[in-house]
Amino acid sequence: LPSLTMHPVMMGLFQRALRLRTSLRHLCLCSTVSTKARLPLAALKSPFLNFGSCREQHVGAVGSKSLPDGAPKRLPFSRVTKEDVDFFKKILPGRTITDPDLVESSNVDWLKSVRGSSEILLRPQTTEEVSQILRYCNNRNLAVNPQGGNTGLVGGSVPVYDEIILSTSLMKNINSFDDISGILTCEAGCVLENLSLYLEDRGYMMPLDLGAKGSCQIGGNVATNAGGLRLLRYGSLHGTVLGLEVVLADGQVLDCLSTLRKDNTGYDLKQLFIGSEGTLGVITAVSILCPPKPKSVNVVFLGCETFECLLKTFQLCKGMLGEILSAFEFLDSECMRLLNTHLKLANPISDCPFYIVIETSGSDPNHDSEKLHSFLEEAMTTLLVTDGTVATEEAKIKALWSMRERVTEALTHDGFTYKYDISLPVERIYQLVTEMRQHLGDRAKSVVGYGHVGDGNLHLNITSPAKDPSLLAAIEPFVYEWTAKFQGSISAEHGLGLKKRNYIYYSKQSQAVALMGHIKALLDPKGILNPYKTLPDKLR
Amino acid sequence: LPSLTMHPVMMGLFQRALRLRTSLRHLCLCSTVSTKARLPLAALKSPFLNFGSCREQHVGAVGSKSLPDGAPKRLPFSRVTKEDVDFFKKILPGRTITDPDLVESSNVDWLKSVRGSSEILLRPQTTEEVSQILRYCNNRNLAVNPQGGNTGLVGGSVPVYDEIILSTSLMKNINSFDDISGILTCEAGCVLENLSLYLEDRGYMMPLDLGAKGSCQIGGNVATNAGGLRLLRYGSLHGTVLGLEVVLADGQVLDCLSTLRKDNTGYDLKQLFIGSEGTLGVITAVSILCPPKPKSVNVVFLGCETFECLLKTFQLCKGMLGEILSAFEFLDSECMRLLNTHLKLANPISDCPFYIVIETSGSDPNHDSEKLHSFLEEAMTTLLVTDGTVATEEAKIKALWSMRERVTEALTHDGFTYKYDISLPVERIYQLVTEMRQHLGDRAKSVVGYGHVGDGNLHLNITSPAKDPSLLAAIEPFVYEWTAKFQGSISAEHGLGLKKRNYIYYSKQSQAVALMGHIKALLDPKGILNPYKTLPDKLR
Repeated sequence: LPSLTMHPVMMGLFQRALRLRTSLRHLCLCSTVSTKARLPLAALKSPFLNFGSCREQHVGAVGSKSLPDGAPKRLPFSRVTKEDVDFFKKILPGRTITDPDLVESSNVDWLKSVRGSSEILLRPQTTEEVSQILRYCNNRNLAVNPQGGNTGLVGGSVPVYDEIILSTSLMKNINSFDDISGILTCEAGCVLENLSLYLEDRGYMMPLDLGAKGSCQIGGNVATNAGGLRLLRYGSLHGTVLGLEVVLADGQVLDCLSTLRKDNTGYDLKQLFIGSEGTLGVITAVSILCPPKPKSVNVVFLGCETFECLLKTFQLCKGMLGEILSAFEFLDSECMRLLNTHLKLANPISDCPFYIVIETSGSDPNHDSEKLHSFLEEAMTTLLVTDGTVATEEAKIKALWSMRERVTEALTHDGFTYKYDISLPVERIYQLVTEMRQHLGDRAKSVVGYGHVGDGNLHLNITSPAKDPSLLAAIEPFVYEWTAKFQGSISAEHGLGLKKRNYIYYSKQSQAVALMGHIKALLDPKGILNPYKTLPDKLR
Repeated sequence: LPSLTMHPVMMGLFQRALRLRTSLRHLCLCSTVSTKARLPLAALKSPFLNFGSCREQHVGAVGSKSLPDGAPKRLPFSRVTKEDVDFFKKILPGRTITDPDLVESSNVDWLKSVRGSSEILLRPQTTEEVSQILRYCNNRNLAVNPQGGNTGLVGGSVPVYDEIILSTSLMKNINSFDDISGILTCEAGCVLENLSLYLEDRGYMMPLDLGAKGSCQIGGNVATNAGGLRLLRYGSLHGTVLGLEVVLADGQVLDCLSTLRKDNTGYDLKQLFIGSEGTLGVITAVSILCPPKPKSVNVVFLGCETFECLLKTFQLCKGMLGEILSAFEFLDSECMRLLNTHLKLANPISDCPFYIVIETSGSDPNHDSEKLHSFLEEAMTTLLVTDGTVATEEAKIKALWSMRERVTEALTHDGFTYKYDISLPVERIYQLVTEMRQHLGDRAKSVVGYGHVGDGNLHLNITSPAKDPSLLAAIEPFVYEWTAKFQGSISAEHGLGLKKRNYIYYSKQSQAVALMGHIKALLDPKGILNPYKTLPDKLR
């Protein structure tokens, strides 16, 4: 299955990250902002220095993106003192990291688009240690950046200023697995792929799958309500997560780590933490319902003349493939052009305006293939699709999936990319691409659309030869206003983090955002948990 | 399908309710507590009069259960004045009901086990009207009991004292249905069965199904996080509900009525209201993801020698039926004895200690039947099951389902019944029945176990010739302590309502309950919404 390997783009970026780490570290030391001891007094007084100047320098160094949105002023949290470090070293001997070289990679996000200047990385091994850390930080008014695999795309997983980084990486025990019910309980730091491998041996699989599975951690997945490739079939984490253990800002351990499918005793508190991006508590353990591993997987690659035909194919497919449908993804001809041009990937079928990738997963290979062939016959006969190819062996399945999965990679070769992750009523998703194309005219190099049709989730990407503020001004707020007009979501699965926090009003009513603010204040009165993220700078 | 008709027990109870209404009304008028004008001053000062004396009288009248838990003292809410009634009549002309005869049925719960003494029933038609009502009540400190179909089992849907009843029955518009995505948006008062019929014409179905479908409303389903027969396949409402519109205690309309499968913009506030039993806000509209209607349904009835074999059959079944499995229910031989004795239902197979009802739903009748027969062959060959029968025609399907569905009815003929709705790790669910049997010895007439194996949900029922306080004392807190010992839930799907509110600590940690209290205080500072429900009288 394609999902078992690291997404090529991700692999590429990790390798690049590895190469860049040395130069980044070097720069950081030169600019004397990596440890407080080296900072001149004036720097300490300027809240933007660390974030602004250092970031600009590094962004220059990695030659890629800058923040799409300015960071807010540093809030008046305490600064980490020698006494604080001594305390942490006492409770986390050998796991209190202050060596700037070692803290560095936790300061920079996966896309290299955001970097903080934290000087301390804590690696607790137990919930009790997380609790001790937060109790101390809350008393001392020290800000904390909870961090999982640091694979987020919106700057939510790294510090903005000098927040203490609290990594869950060492909390990687599997507590229990019930092979009758399929309920897994594990610590937050378990890497998604490791959980998948563990379950595979037991005939089960995780209900979610992401390109980042080799690095992302289940705690971070839950904290960001990760979507991914299996959402169409197995639903969101709000349904599959059965229990959570969470350490609150004041160090209290909230034990909602139920392993029951049904439990109607009071408010379902765990739901609050799913998708709250570490701003309401630190998830330390998760229990999750896992589906049985399918015995048969097929992938089909189809071509359609119009998006209307594509939607009709989706309907037909839902009816005829029914319970075995596990993915319905699309890309447009512009994506295919980029795959051809930049990655030399040949179109497996004849040229069409739209392409579909359908995956089936079932318990009987013969039945699945019969269903698939009946569907294909019907789709061909009624001219909904004009061409197509089917794969049942793993190598061909991988090859077909790569036409969808490597679009992101192809885009990186096309120029500077403006990326949007939009949810819309499914019948609208391509209209945004068309209208954006008209709206931008020849100001953009490429305007491409692809994504999860089954989930109503469009990935809209616009490229230009280089970073282009006037192009950006033409895209935003147009893209957000358009999305808001059709009651869409300006962040389908990536979250808001630092980058998109102030765009929340395009998708959420003021009263709702105000209530979020009240909940934040209730759970984290001092605001120490992942500050500058998720909620907007100003409540309306 | 059995779910399309009203559950026979329910039908019987409704008919009984209809017959009893006249005598109830008569009694109420005699005891002069049904309208405040008739109350002597002393009565107004005694918080227990309405609830206590009137309830006892009516409980006597309907000859059934009394409250399992005493009601708390009436809280110091205002009493409804003539000015209040005038205000409501102005905003809800013809829909402000004060005629005691008409208010009566909304004061009594479905089981006739709890009754309030409200003197006013409001029937808003729009969200704006609900908002006006709550704004007014909040300002006036008037308590409100939100009410849907009034089919709850824990006394959550009726007033305890004189709370204003706010019924959603007239809010029954279907706002939209997207037949590509299967997303339905409708008002809270839509009856579940009407929604099912609406969707059936369009090739879809509701993701939940309950015996009470002919009366229960979607708003109430969501407010109580209803489980039901399809949870095994389609998951809980936390996953399928995509959006909610909720009126908060102060009249603010919280618009979270998204119709998107993915939306990660801020905290998922709607989750708070799912299962909060009307104590945090009044749900006025719902959007929900509906699965396609299956083309083929099969039901199997099997016999097992041990519960261990039954669990192994469940595992085998999950593997071999995979994606078409839609129900896995069980009953024990004691249930079968009651079905034989009281309802003259003949066992469709040979006598066994345990019986299983399996349902499959799929998109291809031939494939489904092939899967089913392979599974049965394997289950028989390996001696997991000792006997069985399969149904594909509707009449036989109904007959087999009735062996599971009519257990409740059979119990009502066996004597006074103590009912428990417990979630446990699936391998523990029958152990509770066995241990309870040993624990009670011959003090109980029958101790029976049945329920949703697939969901780890046991319905434990204990009968005695008549109400028996010493038997109750032997059952409780034993049943709750046993459940707590194995991290179970003392209310799997029924909620806590009035009856079980003080048992919450058996399933939830004190810190969690305290946080629930803070959330209640945040959303409803005066506590006007469905008081005396869900949360315990005293926070630890």
